[in-house]
Amino acid sequence: MDELRIAVVGVGRMGLTHAENLAHRVRQARLVAVTTSSAERADAVRRCCGAVPMYDDLDQLIASEALDAVIIASSTSAHVENVERCAAAGLHILCEKPLGLTLEECDRAVNVVDSVGVKLMMGHTRRFDAGYQEAKRLIESGAIGRPVLYRSISGDVDPPPPAFADLGVSGGLILDSMYHDIYLGRWLMNDEIIRVYGEGDALIDNDVGSVGDVDNAVVSARFAGGAMGSLTASRTTRYGHDLRTEVIGDEGAVQVGRLRKTPVRLLDRSGVHHDAVFTTPERMGDAFGTMLQSFVDCLVDNIEPPVSSQDGLATLAVAIAARHSIQTGAPVEIAEKR
Amino acid sequence: MDELRIAVVGVGRMGLTHAENLAHRVRQARLVAVTTSSAERADAVRRCCGAVPMYDDLDQLIASEALDAVIIASSTSAHVENVERCAAAGLHILCEKPLGLTLEECDRAVNVVDSVGVKLMMGHTRRFDAGYQEAKRLIESGAIGRPVLYRSISGDVDPPPPAFADLGVSGGLILDSMYHDIYLGRWLMNDEIIRVYGEGDALIDNDVGSVGDVDNAVVSARFAGGAMGSLTASRTTRYGHDLRTEVIGDEGAVQVGRLRKTPVRLLDRSGVHHDAVFTTPERMGDAFGTMLQSFVDCLVDNIEPPVSSQDGLATLAVAIAARHSIQTGAPVEIAEKR
Amino acid sequence: MDELRIAVVGVGRMGLTHAENLAHRVRQARLVAVTTSSAERADAVRRCCGAVPMYDDLDQLIASEALDAVIIASSTSAHVENVERCAAAGLHILCEKPLGLTLEECDRAVNVVDSVGVKLMMGHTRRFDAGYQEAKRLIESGAIGRPVLYRSISGDVDPPPPAFADLGVSGGLILDSMYHDIYLGRWLMNDEIIRVYGEGDALIDNDVGSVGDVDNAVVSARFAGGAMGSLTASRTTRYGHDLRTEVIGDEGAVQVGRLRKTPVRLLDRSGVHHDAVFTTPERMGDAFGTMLQSFVDCLVDNIEPPVSSQDGLATLAVAIAARHSIQTGAPVEIAEKR
Amino acid sequence: MDELRIAVVGVGRMGLTHAENLAHRVRQARLVAVTTSSAERADAVRRCCGAVPMYDDLDQLIASEALDAVIIASSTSAHVENVERCAAAGLHILCEKPLGLTLEECDRAVNVVDSVGVKLMMGHTRRFDAGYQEAKRLIESGAIGRPVLYRSISGDVDPPPPAFADLGVSGGLILDSMYHDIYLGRWLMNDEIIRVYGEGDALIDNDVGSVGDVDNAVVSARFAGGAMGSLTASRTTRYGHDLRTEVIGDEGAVQVGRLRKTPVRLLDRSGVHHDAVFTTPERMGDAFGTMLQSFVDCLVDNIEPPVSSQDGLATLAVAIAARHSIQTGAPVEIAEKR
Repeated sequence: MDELRIAVVGVGRMGLTHAENLAHRVRQARLVAVTTSSAERADAVRRCCGAVPMYDDLDQLIASEALDAVIIASSTSAHVENVERCAAAGLHILCEKPLGLTLEECDRAVNVVDSVGVKLMMGHTRRFDAGYQEAKRLIESGAIGRPVLYRSISGDVDPPPPAFADLGVSGGLILDSMYHDIYLGRWLMNDEIIRVYGEGDALIDNDVGSVGDVDNAVVSARFAGGAMGSLTASRTTRYGHDLRTEVIGDEGAVQVGRLRKTPVRLLDRSGVHHDAVFTTPERMGDAFGTMLQSFVDCLVDNIEPPVSSQDGLATLAVAIAARHSIQTGAPVEIAEKR
Repeated sequence: MDELRIAVVGVGRMGLTHAENLAHRVRQARLVAVTTSSAERADAVRRCCGAVPMYDDLDQLIASEALDAVIIASSTSAHVENVERCAAAGLHILCEKPLGLTLEECDRAVNVVDSVGVKLMMGHTRRFDAGYQEAKRLIESGAIGRPVLYRSISGDVDPPPPAFADLGVSGGLILDSMYHDIYLGRWLMNDEIIRVYGEGDALIDNDVGSVGDVDNAVVSARFAGGAMGSLTASRTTRYGHDLRTEVIGDEGAVQVGRLRKTPVRLLDRSGVHHDAVFTTPERMGDAFGTMLQSFVDCLVDNIEPPVSSQDGLATLAVAIAARHSIQTGAPVEIAEKR
Repeated sequence: MDELRIAVVGVGRMGLTHAENLAHRVRQARLVAVTTSSAERADAVRRCCGAVPMYDDLDQLIASEALDAVIIASSTSAHVENVERCAAAGLHILCEKPLGLTLEECDRAVNVVDSVGVKLMMGHTRRFDAGYQEAKRLIESGAIGRPVLYRSISGDVDPPPPAFADLGVSGGLILDSMYHDIYLGRWLMNDEIIRVYGEGDALIDNDVGSVGDVDNAVVSARFAGGAMGSLTASRTTRYGHDLRTEVIGDEGAVQVGRLRKTPVRLLDRSGVHHDAVFTTPERMGDAFGTMLQSFVDCLVDNIEPPVSSQDGLATLAVAIAARHSIQTGAPVEIAEKR
Repeated sequence: MDELRIAVVGVGRMGLTHAENLAHRVRQARLVAVTTSSAERADAVRRCCGAVPMYDDLDQLIASEALDAVIIASSTSAHVENVERCAAAGLHILCEKPLGLTLEECDRAVNVVDSVGVKLMMGHTRRFDAGYQEAKRLIESGAIGRPVLYRSISGDVDPPPPAFADLGVSGGLILDSMYHDIYLGRWLMNDEIIRVYGEGDALIDNDVGSVGDVDNAVVSARFAGGAMGSLTASRTTRYGHDLRTEVIGDEGAVQVGRLRKTPVRLLDRSGVHHDAVFTTPERMGDAFGTMLQSFVDCLVDNIEPPVSSQDGLATLAVAIAARHSIQTGAPVEIAEKR
């Protein structure tokens, strides 16, 4: 296999990043085409990736281009349908998280994928960040003993437009953002979450509240092995894009987090000051490219991707339970075995 | 009033610190006597404070010495009885937290205090730490806007002996340690906690488990004004005495925390290293002396102490609710008005 | 002008980085060819950049390929000759620092460049690092008032092979490494250095001493406007690639520096630990690509490059004076006007 | 010996700190009397130390009080005369640094001290700071290998009044402030400085310039064992009292320094902010009390103090040489053996 031929479905913020990485950074892969029906996004693709065929419609793209794989970065509400179409066409898939909005539709999509036999990797970016990878390595090395506490926060500077926050579109704060902290918890603790309790509300932003979403939330989690977790998500950390995760074991702890943007301090009579990252690319850096390369390498070597559809389903199950707990005010148990 | 005459009831770790501060640091106050029935603690008092009259028994001390006030640093299970005796003797009281083990016994003690008309200040040390005071000042200044999220952790390096962890003696991890984070939350957020949900277990230390206590716990909290909290307590942060607190508002955030002991970094081929505080005095520094001075100043000026018995009761009510939630697995509502 | 056609002369560590950036990152430019006579380096080029024509010899390359510009990344001792040949061929030049080993040969090369009228930009990478750029911006904004003190250190983890350290090849520690700190000083202070005094020795590495070089050095500097500087260079900072620079003004200060590699801390009973960067790419990140893009943009827009040959000459003059002071034990004055 | 009877000579800023520590913190010692002829300073002493006999004149004090030792904290220009008088009276001496303004007068004073046989300890406070002690311990442990580079800076927020800066009173910036960095260098490197070169000027403060002093200076140093040093002193670090010291060895490095005052960070849309220490007590904390205790312990145990008069003389010799180099523009060699 010389160079994998890959298309990107949806070129919003994430899709454009994937397209650009495919065009310039990823080895043994080529950006073949994208789907978009927006002239403005088409321009953006041209600026970042050069001349690339663009299609209004996924079916049209599939019909017109010879492809090995696709990256699905459309709206979450369209993920499952797109996964099913691409799988039916025999294409390997990297799908942005979450896989879908309900476990039922996700199960359906995974059945199609499994029956066709293509590979489906979930786009859990943080796993490919050098910081989280080093944390995982340290935990696996035994440096902190037995993991006992998991604490994590994800903060965005400003709320998204309500059209995105909509539970029927992105799944809302818990499915879209705390999803990452749930996945990191499962991965770093090497354990499953079996119970959650959440508090959440639209305290600041009436717009996200008007579409049923919350802007801030805290979730308590219990792991099957006994460990405990505290997860926080915020759409209003005005001071920066604040991603911090820590695992405390019975012999030590690891902390991952970086808010500073440039390595510069200003010192004056009013104190000591430094800047902060405000966007995901500023904070995550190479992780997107590393993730794509990993996907491509797995296809080239014909091995299972590091983030499976089951990882996606298990993470989504916890996220849905947490959102349900926030809505009902009661703890929610999660079936250990799906 | 020239110099207040103060006795210390109980000279364990905390009591000895108070006695030493009274003997050497606090202005307009004098250490008059202590109670202890241990020859070893009596020696420690002599080493730290010089020659001080010592009594086996509080009644004996009260009968023998002319006193203005007492500091109660006995076992928590004896707090209420000691408060009642001292109040009955017309003495002002600084009482270590928590005031008692049940709200009922605390109500009883406060009734005695109020009917006699002496002052009762609660020993909420962290409030007197320069760091938390600066955080409070910043929040009050409006620098972070409206507080929305409260995150706090208190970690001790090693579990206490089970005789101390015993729920009937110290109240266990939640009443003894997370109590601080609950109080800080109420104080920094300037709001009351109305609902809690907790997960906790004795994961590491069978001994504290054998007396009904937990060694690690996470608690979700909801404030009356809508804000949300995540509180963590651990008896097994082997890497140091880890106290961190943060408040995120809709315009910014404050973080309080310091783990480093000396301002020294060692850099070698294996990385960059620094030390950590392991004990409360290393971390809290002058806060104990500042708290005592505040108590003495209030008595001298005849003004209300900054931490009232109602502060103690409201904090204890939340702690008891959190412990109850951990035990029952259900969220617990806290009556807003006591 | 559609895409600039650029060749890379010399594909050692720096040259390979430039070639890779040209091949993948830089807009409006194309990597046309490289020179190398080493099969091993040729392999490395192929791995990083794909199929690229390679030539043993610069003249051959110039004769065979249609070119707009070259990047000279050969040994410093060959810089001047290469600059002269390329300028004579009408090619624009980005030359790695320093421009040469003596001011005389550099003057000669600049004369050729000026008479032909091609552009010559010096490869002062740090200027293009986001950290130093932010520091410059803060200083220019007046945030620190009048700059008074300049302190800078550059540390490499291990000494280079003596064949590289050789004063006749790379110019040694002062011309090769402290050169950066001299340039940053001139640029950040917006002032010229008029006097230097240096102490230096081969304390650790006999090999670099055997070729006349030093492994550690400190240099005091005086700026024309009165400000003072302290520059340190080390080939033996075993703990990491340590680049720190600060400017103290009469109203504040800026500090630039980052040693940490991943944003991860490990905490255990022995303390708190984090990792460190060990290589230039780890520390400087995108600066190399940013520099190349700047060069290309200047050619496309036909404007003067941000780092001129005069910048290179003035920096080299100070470096040579500092090396001379170390050798003679006397302060050396630098003619303000060249 | 029950309790040492100690007087404090001079109760300016330093003397008052010593008096207060003697009155309240130091074991086995008692504050017997002070000298002062200022009603305002007498008031300050009373506020900090309670009722203490005060004398206009040292001779009068010596004649009137039974004493074991004195702490000399008068103006530097009076140190030597005070040392001679106290030694002649058979009193042990803790003398603030530097011992005097010239090596000649210091030699005379040390001769008197030695002939009488009293102990003379120099008040090198930083040695007693927990941070520098930990750094020393790490270096002695071999953790950084052979020390090769010494870098140190001492910054004061604002210049002193010219009456103090006067070379004939305090000795100026180099003898008063950089003295600390010279001593720390000798102590941490366990080596003597044999050559210095300095640049210094009154760039910001005309007043200190008018009395012959400088407000900023950098000094290069060479140690007998080959290591190199860079020392910086500033009277205009407006952002705080900035004391940083580092030693780089051939296997690692240690860094000492702390600018932050409270462990609080404010984060808002403009960045991340924290406060800074502005005064010596804020930065040095317990070091003054620790130093006095060490002096008292040495007298009680009749052992040699950790900082000898020879330490004071060797440090002063380097400081005078550095000041001379700044004045003459030439490197100055320091006789290794005095």
